Amino acid sequence: MISVDKALKIVTKETPTRGSESVRLVDAVGRVLAQPIAADSDMPPFDRSQMDGYAMQAEDARRVPARLRIVGESAAGRGWHKKVRSGEAIRIMTGAPLAPGTDAIQKIELTSEDSDVVVINEPTEVGKYIVRKGSEIKKGDKLFSPGERIDEKMIASLAAFGYANVRVSTRPKVAILGTGTEIVPVDQKPGRDQIRNSNSFMLRSLAEQAGAIARMLPQTGDDLGRLKARISKSVDSSADILVITGGVSVGKYDLTKVALLGLGAEIYFEKVRLRPGKPAVFARLNDTIIFGLPGNPVSSAVTFYLFVRKAILLMQRASVTDLASGTAILTSAVRAAKERDTYLPATTDTDKNGRLLATPLRWHGSSDFVGFARADALLKLEPDEVRSAGDVVPIRYI
Amino acid sequence: MISVDKALKIVTKETPTRGSESVRLVDAVGRVLAQPIAADSDMPPFDRSQMDGYAMQAEDARRVPARLRIVGESAAGRGWHKKVRSGEAIRIMTGAPLAPGTDAIQKIELTSEDSDVVVINEPTEVGKYIVRKGSEIKKGDKLFSPGERIDEKMIASLAAFGYANVRVSTRPKVAILGTGTEIVPVDQKPGRDQIRNSNSFMLRSLAEQAGAIARMLPQTGDDLGRLKARISKSVDSSADILVITGGVSVGKYDLTKVALLGLGAEIYFEKVRLRPGKPAVFARLNDTIIFGLPGNPVSSAVTFYLFVRKAILLMQRASVTDLASGTAILTSAVRAAKERDTYLPATTDTDKNGRLLATPLRWHGSSDFVGFARADALLKLEPDEVRSAGDVVPIRYI
Repeated sequence: MISVDKALKIVTKETPTRGSESVRLVDAVGRVLAQPIAADSDMPPFDRSQMDGYAMQAEDARRVPARLRIVGESAAGRGWHKKVRSGEAIRIMTGAPLAPGTDAIQKIELTSEDSDVVVINEPTEVGKYIVRKGSEIKKGDKLFSPGERIDEKMIASLAAFGYANVRVSTRPKVAILGTGTEIVPVDQKPGRDQIRNSNSFMLRSLAEQAGAIARMLPQTGDDLGRLKARISKSVDSSADILVITGGVSVGKYDLTKVALLGLGAEIYFEKVRLRPGKPAVFARLNDTIIFGLPGNPVSSAVTFYLFVRKAILLMQRASVTDLASGTAILTSAVRAAKERDTYLPATTDTDKNGRLLATPLRWHGSSDFVGFARADALLKLEPDEVRSAGDVVPIRYI
Repeated sequence: MISVDKALKIVTKETPTRGSESVRLVDAVGRVLAQPIAADSDMPPFDRSQMDGYAMQAEDARRVPARLRIVGESAAGRGWHKKVRSGEAIRIMTGAPLAPGTDAIQKIELTSEDSDVVVINEPTEVGKYIVRKGSEIKKGDKLFSPGERIDEKMIASLAAFGYANVRVSTRPKVAILGTGTEIVPVDQKPGRDQIRNSNSFMLRSLAEQAGAIARMLPQTGDDLGRLKARISKSVDSSADILVITGGVSVGKYDLTKVALLGLGAEIYFEKVRLRPGKPAVFARLNDTIIFGLPGNPVSSAVTFYLFVRKAILLMQRASVTDLASGTAILTSAVRAAKERDTYLPATTDTDKNGRLLATPLRWHGSSDFVGFARADALLKLEPDEVRSAGDVVPIRYI
């Protein structure tokens, strides 16, 4: 048995990366950048007005009321490019370029216009209501780096600098295989002793959330020959990652390891000092990396979040591959498992003083997927650790 | 000008809801539930073993070592349904049903097996390693309610209780229209005075994130006739929501309001006491609700997050339609706009004591979409409010 840290190091070392492809910007959210993103122009690309109003020489509007002759107009997309002289002004719109010769703007609410003359009723000053060329970003500035995962808020920057297409890592292909004769498909009524296949659906969703293209394989029951055939087929059909749930404990019918060994897979680890989730297998066969996760849904989810999610992101060369971390204050006591790294599902919320509180889920063990659905974090405890209400503990956001 | 709260009340009152449809479970993430979700069976559906080991009468394993005759085996999916008597035991696997007559389990590591006899080396007790039928959930229990948005962690529960298909609200159809002659498509090089259309791409992504089906319309420039024609066409083609950016200020070429009035739209509000984002229009024409957002990208994003996102979720009958809220401790001083509700972009992180810190973005005003890409929260300030480093402020997560 190895620690979670050691297991994470092995996953990092043994997970291969994949290639990249170009996608349209509208398809880029959730993908990992495979190119640097730089500004192809200053932003703003010209001295720009922040207001609807009039542009002039500040000196002309120092003493008010000041009467200035309107000689032109600068609208967004149609600037005024003739020189404006002392005693003159132009109308200017929000987003429009400043005209040559002007150095200040007064907003329309503080002016009045009468035929070709504008009266400036309040003084303005040099630079007022002007966003200078390049003040937000300079041509050539790096905006985003390879390995960053594209989110909705980055899209405006990509569009503004002309990334109609963007190079991203290819999505790892993840195949999910549920084992066990107790498992029936979701659209069937379970017989005596049976349950529906909830793990495969959950893992499929979690894998897609991490950026993979995931599919569920037909179930194999607990027939060793069928299990081996299914694993071989996944490897041959170039799945990047195969996730097998159930069948990794020490029980007589837990066949995943037997099947992997029989097929000549290299097994990197087969037990992690972790609760929930002790029996977690990590192996490789040809170009496919293989995870064997526990059959209990919560154990399955936690080992997915820690190991499989990381592999999916490593394969995409993501710069951040671990769950986001932080600290929180316990609202009730918790106790780690004996000699095992412990990750307890919890909900988090801030109190009125900006403190992040973590409430351990009242749950019924590692099979309680209904309780787990409400969790938004895992509390990270050292083996045997006991913590009280009010203690600060490290958390991982899920 | 109205307050943000007043504007949100109007959006809530005037946004109509839409219908529902049935989708496959694999397509359900991100959708809003339109039916209650209940358990169709107890969970676990039978007394279930948490361990690989042996099941027996606890009384028989009170004094150890205890030798018990192995009479059968209960595997997951293939239980042992004959009565087990005193002096007898059965092999049992993780996830398998308990056999009648047994009331305790000992895990395999604390036993030894010799032909048909198991030696129990450590005492066990009634209920040990058994998850009782219905202890996690009882048949008929409500799990999720209409209006909840389905996330990855809920999928296991839906699958376990047979929701191969699930009824969800239909996705609102959102059309996005960028106005202004300064705007060129993302794949073109902007000419003098021009910029690329970054808003439409950003709003499209944000609308999809909120659950909509979003599309970008061809740009109209600032021709009133073309703008009116485009609005009419969107309304006729049954867009649920039309989002127009730019063209809502007081400038000579800001035509959105002129176009809306000319088409006979009902305008509910046209200015919100908000920074960034003062000129925000909310209107309705036939069955389409229409938002006019400011052209500045950050103003556009903030007004989207506050108003359009809410409308998209209201239309889906979501039970939570506002951004998630909390509190955080400022790392530097901030100042609200004069007489306006202020939402300042910030990044958040916890310190080592479980306190959530908010760092206002060093940004360059409401056009700075590059800075905004790093924000994960908005700091909410009252009009004219001044706050210092160390103060607690309300936040909204974005």
